[in-house]
Amino acid sequence: MVHDILTAERIAAIEKELRHIAAIIKQKGREILLQYPITAPQFVALQWLADKGDMTTGELSQTIRLAISTTTDIVDRLEKNELVKRVRDEKDRRIVRVHILKKGEHIITEVIEKRQAYLKELLETFSHQEADQLQLLLHKLHGKMNDYEQLEAKTEKKKRR
Amino acid sequence: MVHDILTAERIAAIEKELRHIAAIIKQKGREILLQYPITAPQFVALQWLADKGDMTTGELSQTIRLAISTTTDIVDRLEKNELVKRVRDEKDRRIVRVHILKKGEHIITEVIEKRQAYLKELLETFSHQEADQLQLLLHKLHGKMNDYEQLEAKTEKKKRR
Repeated sequence: MVHDILTAERIAAIEKELRHIAAIIKQKGREILLQYPITAPQFVALQWLADKGDMTTGELSQTIRLAISTTTDIVDRLEKNELVKRVRDEKDRRIVRVHILKKGEHIITEVIEKRQAYLKELLETFSHQEADQLQLLLHKLHGKMNDYEQLEAKTEKKKRR
Repeated sequence: MVHDILTAERIAAIEKELRHIAAIIKQKGREILLQYPITAPQFVALQWLADKGDMTTGELSQTIRLAISTTTDIVDRLEKNELVKRVRDEKDRRIVRVHILKKGEHIITEVIEKRQAYLKELLETFSHQEADQLQLLLHKLHGKMNDYEQLEAKTEKKKRR
């Protein structure tokens, strides 16, 4: 029976590993950010802008899952520190997008390089095959998480109708 | 050459997966907590007390990596909600430990069951072998993270001398 193989014990073990690993990653990320003039939510916003390109505050708020008012505050502070700027759409002047600046990109690159250096040390004793499997399995898990969120968002929309 | 096999590309890919997965896990955890009268840091403290048993506020503060003053605030609020109580050591009355109460244990159990149910849905399409590998690789990674932290703590102590 295919559905019996994922025992409650295994689920519990994986949940615990993920919970603790996520907590350590969060803590490590905060330690790295201490050296930079940005907070954790500011980093998250900046990282998405670097990754996905310009976004309106509304789009950014949905992406980082924070209220519009909080997102506006974050963008204000990033703009004050010259890490982003607000750019008006050429064609539709009512639309304003947040654009990451060189200084913002530079911080993101440095922070991610430090996170990679940390991970590299952790993975030093992993074989080629293990690292390969880890990447594949995390990719699959991440994909399932995204599927789940999309499904949830759809259900939420239906409920609201 | 053993050290060449972990290419920068692979490190970058795994770092990105872990960063995004950790963010989703954090967000999901927060969503689950919305149904309970505790905040995220309160949950983290409660979870360690459930896991490791009674601790002094100092020990708890080190475990959850928050300042003593913040940890004291968290314990105060948990005590007010009857999720923990402070217990004086029988032998050495100067020592006060935080003890999780039934109501606190109950919340932890429920929250973790919800997190497990979420994970179970995500892992539905994973084969027995994949789930097995995921557990092993996460366990190894978590172990390396703990080793790294202990090494860092030692280096920190030496620096202070």
